[in-house]
Amino acid sequence: MGNADYVFPSSGDCGHRVAIPPSQPFYKSLKKSLKETFFPDDPVRQFKNQPPSRKFILGLQYFLPILEWAPRYTFQYFKADLIAGITITSLAIPQGISYAKLANLPPILGLYSSFVPPLVYAMMGSSRDLAVGTVAVASLLTASMLGKEVNANEHPTLYLHLAFTATFFAGVLQATLGILRLGFIVDFLSHATIVGFMAGAATVVCLQQLKGILGLEHFTHATDVVSVMRSVFTQTHQWRWESAVLGCCFLFFLMLTRYFSKRRPRFFWISALAPLTSVILGSLLVYFTHAENHGVQVIGHLKKGLNPPSLTHLTFGSQYLTVVMKTGIITGVIALAEGIAVGRSFAMFKNYHIDGNKEMIAFGMMNIAGSCTSCYLTTGPFSRSAVNFNAGCKTAVSNIVMATAVMITLLFLTPLFHYTPLVVLSSIIISAMLGLIDYEAAVHLWQVDKFDFIVCIGAYIGVVFGSVEIGLVIAVSLSILRVLLFVARPRTSALGNIPNSMTYRSFVQYPVANNIPGIFILRVDAPIYFANANYLRERISRWIGEEEEKLKSTGETSLQYIILDMGCVASIDTSGISMLEEVKKNIDRRGLKLALVNPGSEVMKKLDKSKFLEDIGQEWVYLTVAEAVGACNFMLHTCKSAPAREIV
Amino acid sequence: MGNADYVFPSSGDCGHRVAIPPSQPFYKSLKKSLKETFFPDDPVRQFKNQPPSRKFILGLQYFLPILEWAPRYTFQYFKADLIAGITITSLAIPQGISYAKLANLPPILGLYSSFVPPLVYAMMGSSRDLAVGTVAVASLLTASMLGKEVNANEHPTLYLHLAFTATFFAGVLQATLGILRLGFIVDFLSHATIVGFMAGAATVVCLQQLKGILGLEHFTHATDVVSVMRSVFTQTHQWRWESAVLGCCFLFFLMLTRYFSKRRPRFFWISALAPLTSVILGSLLVYFTHAENHGVQVIGHLKKGLNPPSLTHLTFGSQYLTVVMKTGIITGVIALAEGIAVGRSFAMFKNYHIDGNKEMIAFGMMNIAGSCTSCYLTTGPFSRSAVNFNAGCKTAVSNIVMATAVMITLLFLTPLFHYTPLVVLSSIIISAMLGLIDYEAAVHLWQVDKFDFIVCIGAYIGVVFGSVEIGLVIAVSLSILRVLLFVARPRTSALGNIPNSMTYRSFVQYPVANNIPGIFILRVDAPIYFANANYLRERISRWIGEEEEKLKSTGETSLQYIILDMGCVASIDTSGISMLEEVKKNIDRRGLKLALVNPGSEVMKKLDKSKFLEDIGQEWVYLTVAEAVGACNFMLHTCKSAPAREIV
Repeated sequence: MGNADYVFPSSGDCGHRVAIPPSQPFYKSLKKSLKETFFPDDPVRQFKNQPPSRKFILGLQYFLPILEWAPRYTFQYFKADLIAGITITSLAIPQGISYAKLANLPPILGLYSSFVPPLVYAMMGSSRDLAVGTVAVASLLTASMLGKEVNANEHPTLYLHLAFTATFFAGVLQATLGILRLGFIVDFLSHATIVGFMAGAATVVCLQQLKGILGLEHFTHATDVVSVMRSVFTQTHQWRWESAVLGCCFLFFLMLTRYFSKRRPRFFWISALAPLTSVILGSLLVYFTHAENHGVQVIGHLKKGLNPPSLTHLTFGSQYLTVVMKTGIITGVIALAEGIAVGRSFAMFKNYHIDGNKEMIAFGMMNIAGSCTSCYLTTGPFSRSAVNFNAGCKTAVSNIVMATAVMITLLFLTPLFHYTPLVVLSSIIISAMLGLIDYEAAVHLWQVDKFDFIVCIGAYIGVVFGSVEIGLVIAVSLSILRVLLFVARPRTSALGNIPNSMTYRSFVQYPVANNIPGIFILRVDAPIYFANANYLRERISRWIGEEEEKLKSTGETSLQYIILDMGCVASIDTSGISMLEEVKKNIDRRGLKLALVNPGSEVMKKLDKSKFLEDIGQEWVYLTVAEAVGACNFMLHTCKSAPAREIV
Repeated sequence: MGNADYVFPSSGDCGHRVAIPPSQPFYKSLKKSLKETFFPDDPVRQFKNQPPSRKFILGLQYFLPILEWAPRYTFQYFKADLIAGITITSLAIPQGISYAKLANLPPILGLYSSFVPPLVYAMMGSSRDLAVGTVAVASLLTASMLGKEVNANEHPTLYLHLAFTATFFAGVLQATLGILRLGFIVDFLSHATIVGFMAGAATVVCLQQLKGILGLEHFTHATDVVSVMRSVFTQTHQWRWESAVLGCCFLFFLMLTRYFSKRRPRFFWISALAPLTSVILGSLLVYFTHAENHGVQVIGHLKKGLNPPSLTHLTFGSQYLTVVMKTGIITGVIALAEGIAVGRSFAMFKNYHIDGNKEMIAFGMMNIAGSCTSCYLTTGPFSRSAVNFNAGCKTAVSNIVMATAVMITLLFLTPLFHYTPLVVLSSIIISAMLGLIDYEAAVHLWQVDKFDFIVCIGAYIGVVFGSVEIGLVIAVSLSILRVLLFVARPRTSALGNIPNSMTYRSFVQYPVANNIPGIFILRVDAPIYFANANYLRERISRWIGEEEEKLKSTGETSLQYIILDMGCVASIDTSGISMLEEVKKNIDRRGLKLALVNPGSEVMKKLDKSKFLEDIGQEWVYLTVAEAVGACNFMLHTCKSAPAREIV
């Protein structure tokens, strides 16, 4: 039965065939796919058709967004930014000191880190709501990763220098990712990963605070729950009740203000001011009761003056280079993920656009500058940015206000923190961390997507029982495994005709769909790649075998045509094409005929190049399932007396 | 403009809506997806509705396929298998000795490995054409990986024991993968990877033979081309011309027979017998000319007798455990990939079915048994199996014949190999390897799929200039990167109406497609996952922005409806749902309306659970693009005087 002997009614009628797209030169298609991969947002669009001088200004504005919005800045904006800036300063000072303690670094570094980096970000950042500062998770990571190699108490200077160097590497990594437009790497930290990871990190950070709350002198360097609990309960005789009582009181106060502000969003400033209030109250209490002599540890002396330069302290040649680079890379990526997620969320609220790659460059430059001026890793923490947003900030000027206020503190007010009890700092950290454990999000994940829930729980358990890195590796591997599994085990479905229509849909989803006698329609829902070629070959052969058996047992018209709906096969590789060739052979051997429906342009091109189209015959490729069914039905009924099985 | 005020003509007519599938209990959907992942071939199908005794027999036959075909074995089959078995023995003996030398193991191991493993495979294997034996690539890998830790010349016994242990681990891994039904891991070695990897390994193996051909005593242990070339050219004074001349003559003879047999497939036996002929000729030549005293190295004494047991030589407690396990895992996977690919190819020729997981168990058991009987890693080499197939084998009995012939050799004929020159073995290896360099396949890859070509070249360069493992890691990473990139950067396309039809297709592929005024139709061609959620959000917003700008500049009807064709979105996760929510908000903010078309059942279920369906309104979900366009057009024309943009 030569194909040429037949007229194809439905395809002849409408005259639209699946055309083979004209082959493009290689460099052109390469350029196109590179552009879509690295420049999906088309950042040079606005540069088109502009005179050179304008292009230069646009270019400057691209890298320094402040040049774009500063000319339009008004006094009204400044009033709003001033209030927001002062509010976040009141949060930044105690948080900065607390997180620096968490990172086992001198407390003053927390203040330094709230001075230089916000200024850099104000120039280069494109978010209007992000408030720059240190974050708990990155601080903890620095402590646990560097602490494995160098003891911060025994070699404080070496540890400090390694922390600067790690910050430098983090900055270089962030800027490089931005310049190379590899921002999408951050996308591999899925929402579920971040929920689980943050909750795990918050749990770990809270556990670490038991040291401060219980006034312990010695404490484990490990972060997992087993080591911490062992460390806490092996030295019950060292617990200080004075410290514990003070800590619990402040924690209760902080939680109360948080709860109140959450119920009445207008009074956001109550919870924003609570940390500074706690610090002041705690310091006064210690000052008047001399509690520092009764087991309540205090911050002690803080050096006056602005950030000393630290460029010469960056050490690249030491034996610790590997661990420093590893720390820089992991903390850099985590900080990036948090900062970009926060920036994006607020930009969405206010309906403006943030360029992820530009933000990365800003974060990178801010950390490189920070590492040279005695700062450690900074990003855009959620808590501080949320306060900034609630306080009504308009532009990044609120960061400049904060930096100025911190500068004044550094120059004149550091002695005031001498009597601040460490236990208050622990309370501040715990109250901030409890807000990061988002169990409602975990419940939502469970309800909507079980696999995402597993990823989330994997990250949590990994962080809490292993370490922060283990949790991260588990979550990212599970996420990638999901993508690979999707491709390795694509869904295939048999299609039927929806009554009174030309539409063909899956029998499983639409039980009303009708079978077409003698024709079996199959749809593949994924690209055909090496990873699924073997599976698809076996699965298609099983579909056909089962259908033939079923028809035989019910005594219906035997199968004569297999229609493969390729509409959703977005891509194919050479393993996939071999698979199709084998499927074709297999179908021929059973005495059936194969027809393809609606292959995309890329698939069409490859099928043509690999001669598969010649093999199957281009007249067996249809635009729609309905057309293919029409043509097959026509052939079925024309030669009813002699079934295709025998003539082929 | 409340949605409830409107009647939806086209959807009301046909009465088919996209239904939300009834929610299944969790364990049921878990069971279903686990089954589809691990048991896509449904191996228990034949066990259904059978009495227990029959089930027992079927179960035995499942693990020992010989029980299934042995009762039907005839004398006709045996005649064919006998001829095939003798033919492959003549290839197996010289190849076995050569490859054992390649692995730096005693030559006799090559014979041992052609005795026990084929017997095990004949019981358990399901391929009728596979001939079991050692392979060059795995031998080379064993030499290079174990050789890094232990020098085979200085500590031959330790090296031998480590090789047995590595074989044991390889067997355990193979059997475990089969039992856990993780066979699809092998699928991640794509066709392109294997082409590049095999060519690279063949190049490296040929380079290693320069030692034998040039009669060198000392040789580098590295496998990369730079080290080998340096090793060869720094000792030009050690080159032995006698050896080189002999080697070139035999190589020429072997290539000639190969060429002849390729041209005349009927005379396949000429090339099959050529290696044994070379060995006999070479040995006679050395015996009569006493060339062993003139720089031609010979095999020397081979111990008579069958495989000695080696169970007690397996060493699990030594300091080399890590490297042994690594060697076992890598060689095990490579051997598996080759064996299964070979088995599948011949099964396709003869149109019978091979169960990959069952084959893995067979390979695993054969190597575990081998490691206890002084064999090293075996699999189904392509060359030997092809000869087996050409010689007309019918069942695995040809393996039993080969094992018997090798047994006879071991018992009585080993002294005959005393004078076999090593250079002949080198020629045999080179001539076998040259057949593995499939440059035509590489050209085909370049023509059809550039990325596959890059994977192939990456594997080749990695193997030749780095090491076998580096090449493998490069190729697998590139392949996985491709899958991840496909998901991270899915194709989106704007659709238009194909004239005179209800069909909507991409403008890029079908330039005849027509725009619908006021409506923009967009299709997403991949699952919506965390990895692409951010990209898709930006890309969709850019599509809409560009379309609005275009319409503004041409002065056409402004945009009012966005139709998102979800037919190809096979799956969605929580990040994807958040993305859709944001897209919806963005579209609302622009004063437009969003309609979804044809979401699959899984997507529908998740959209419902996450309340997105409530948010968008289920009446905005259509079965086909045509229906959605019909409904939008109806609304557009009903309220033409008051554009939707203002009423919403």
